[in-house]
Amino acid sequence: MSELINLDLDQVHALAMRALTRNGMGADHARAIADTITQGQRDECHSHGLYRVLVCVQSLRSGKVDPLARPTVSRPAPSIVSVDAHRGYSLLAFQTGLPLLVEQARELGVAALVIRNCFHFSALWPEVEAIAAEGLVGLAMTPSHAWVAPEGGSKGVFGTNPLAFAWPREGREPFVFDFATSAIARGDIELHARQDKPIPLGWGLDANGRPTTNARAALEGAMQTFGGHKGSALAAMIELLAGALIGDMTSAESLAFDAGAGATPCHGELLLAFDPARFLGNAMEEGQRRAEQLFAAITDQGARLPSQRRFAARKRSEREGVWVEQALLDDIERLMA
Amino acid sequence: MSELINLDLDQVHALAMRALTRNGMGADHARAIADTITQGQRDECHSHGLYRVLVCVQSLRSGKVDPLARPTVSRPAPSIVSVDAHRGYSLLAFQTGLPLLVEQARELGVAALVIRNCFHFSALWPEVEAIAAEGLVGLAMTPSHAWVAPEGGSKGVFGTNPLAFAWPREGREPFVFDFATSAIARGDIELHARQDKPIPLGWGLDANGRPTTNARAALEGAMQTFGGHKGSALAAMIELLAGALIGDMTSAESLAFDAGAGATPCHGELLLAFDPARFLGNAMEEGQRRAEQLFAAITDQGARLPSQRRFAARKRSEREGVWVEQALLDDIERLMA
Repeated sequence: MSELINLDLDQVHALAMRALTRNGMGADHARAIADTITQGQRDECHSHGLYRVLVCVQSLRSGKVDPLARPTVSRPAPSIVSVDAHRGYSLLAFQTGLPLLVEQARELGVAALVIRNCFHFSALWPEVEAIAAEGLVGLAMTPSHAWVAPEGGSKGVFGTNPLAFAWPREGREPFVFDFATSAIARGDIELHARQDKPIPLGWGLDANGRPTTNARAALEGAMQTFGGHKGSALAAMIELLAGALIGDMTSAESLAFDAGAGATPCHGELLLAFDPARFLGNAMEEGQRRAEQLFAAITDQGARLPSQRRFAARKRSEREGVWVEQALLDDIERLMA
Repeated sequence: MSELINLDLDQVHALAMRALTRNGMGADHARAIADTITQGQRDECHSHGLYRVLVCVQSLRSGKVDPLARPTVSRPAPSIVSVDAHRGYSLLAFQTGLPLLVEQARELGVAALVIRNCFHFSALWPEVEAIAAEGLVGLAMTPSHAWVAPEGGSKGVFGTNPLAFAWPREGREPFVFDFATSAIARGDIELHARQDKPIPLGWGLDANGRPTTNARAALEGAMQTFGGHKGSALAAMIELLAGALIGDMTSAESLAFDAGAGATPCHGELLLAFDPARFLGNAMEEGQRRAEQLFAAITDQGARLPSQRRFAARKRSEREGVWVEQALLDDIERLMA
C-alpha cells in the first residue's frame, strides 16, 4: 500500500471535478458525479469514491457515454416524472428529476421518478438519502448486466440489481439500506480471481451450472442471487419494474448493448417517493415514534441498523478528512497530463 | 389420512359461506373470505384453503374480530386510497378499496391502497393477482407478529412480513411471487415441533440467541429472516411501509395487542399499483415483449417461474374439482351443528 494523503471533502470534490472536466465532461455532469464520488469517499465506500474517477474517464474515452448530454423531463402521468438521460450518466438526470419527484410526492402522496437511457455506475444510497433529506420515504432499483442466474438455472439473466430504501429520521441520519440482489458484488468475485483465492459456495456456478468455489469459473459461468428463490424473485421484479415497465433495457439487453466493451451498464432506473405527511396526516408523530421504537428494538439487542458503519465513517471524514492512497492520486493526476 | 372427497369450486365456496355466516359473519365479509379460501383450495395452498374456515370461526368465537364491521374509505391524498377495516377481516376492506386503487393508478400512473385496523390471515397473492387482472402491476406487503429476530440479534422484532408482486401477462396467468421475509413459515416450525423433527440451521434461534435445530427451542426463541442482513433489511422496510407509514401497528405492537390470545394478527397492509399503459404509452408492446423475453430466458434454461406449481394446480382444480379430506369436512360441518 502506498502512502496515505489526507484530503478534506472539498479537496476530494475539486479533484474529481477537475479530472472529469479536463476529460471533456460537461461541468453540470461533472458536478453531479463529483458530488456522489465525494459521498462515497466520505462514507469509506472506496469502490464508489475517488477510484471511480478512473472508471468514469475510461468510459468517457471509450466514447459510449455522451459527456454533454442534456437530460430532458416529461410527465407521462401526474404521478410519474420521467427523465431521459440521452445516453449521459444517470446522476445529472437524477438531480434534474429529484425536485419534481419531491413536489409530486408531496402533492399526490406517492410518486415515481423514471430515469431512462442512462449510464449507471453509482450506488443507490446517495439517491434514496437525498429523498429522505426532503422528509420523504425513498425506494430505488435498477438492473445492470445479466451476470446472475435465476434460482434453479445456470445462465445469467439478472443483473446484480440493487434495491435501496431510506426512511427519514428527525435530526439524524435516515434508516437506509442498499443491497445487491446477487449473493455478492461482481467486483468481490473479480478480486478473489485476481488473488487466486477460493470463493464460498453460494456465490457462483461454473459454465456447466455446477456450484463452484473457483472465482474464475464463476466469472465464466454465472453469479447466484442471495436468498435462493426469494432473492431470485426480487431480482426478476427489478428487471420488470426498472426495465420492462419503464421502457428501458433489461440486464440481458444492456449486456448485449455493451457488446464486450466492458463499459458501465446502460439502462434505466425507477425511484419511488412516499410522503409520510400525506399518509399520516395528524398522526405524523405517532408514525415517527413507531419507527423509532422499531429501530430501538433492533439496536437495543445488539443488532446493527444497515449503514451504521457508513454513518460512522461519515462523521469521522467530516471531522478529519479522508485518507487517500498517493498511488490513486497519481493515477488521477495522470488523467490530466 | 381420511377419505378424500371431490368437490367442485362452487361447492367449496358455498361450504365456506355457509360455515361463516352460520357463525355470525356478515354475508359480504363471508363472501370475500370464501372467495379467498376457494382460491387457496383451488391452487392447492392447503393452509389457505378450507382449513382456514376452522381458523376464522375460532377467531370469530374469540370475539376479537368484528364480523359485521363496515369498511370505510377515505382519500388522504390523490394517490392514496385508505380503507379502515374497523377491526373486521382485511378481505372485504381489500375488495372495497380495489376498484378505487385501480381507478387512481390508471388516472395517476401509480397509486397506493392502505388497509388499516384489519385482522389478517390470508396470503397476498390473491390480492396482487386481482390487481394484475386489471392490467396493472401490483405490490403488497404486511407485518404480522414479532416472532422474527433481526440479523445479528436474538429477539423477535419483525413479523414473517410477506412481500407479494404480480406482473400482468396477455391471455395467461401473471408473473406472481408471494414470500415471507422469514426463512420459513412459523407453521412449518410448529409442524416440526409437533412431529419432534429437527429443523435446519438458519430457521431459528433458541432463547439464548444461539442457532438451533430444535423446533420447540426456536418457537420459544426467535425465527430468522431469509437471506441474512438483506432479508432482515427487507423485513424492516415492511414494518416501516406497512406499519409506521400507514399509521398502523408494527409486528411488535400487534403481538402485544394479541396479548397471548393466539388470534390472527391485527395490523395494516400496503398495496401499490402501477399502470404500464401510463408508464409506457406507445411502447406498451415493447414493454410486454421485454417481460416475456425475461420469462423465457428463465424457463428456457429449466428454471421455474414462481407460482408455476400453483397455476398447474389451478388448471387441474378448475377441470377436475378439488379433493378434500372427509375429516376436514366433518370438522367444518360440526361448526354448524
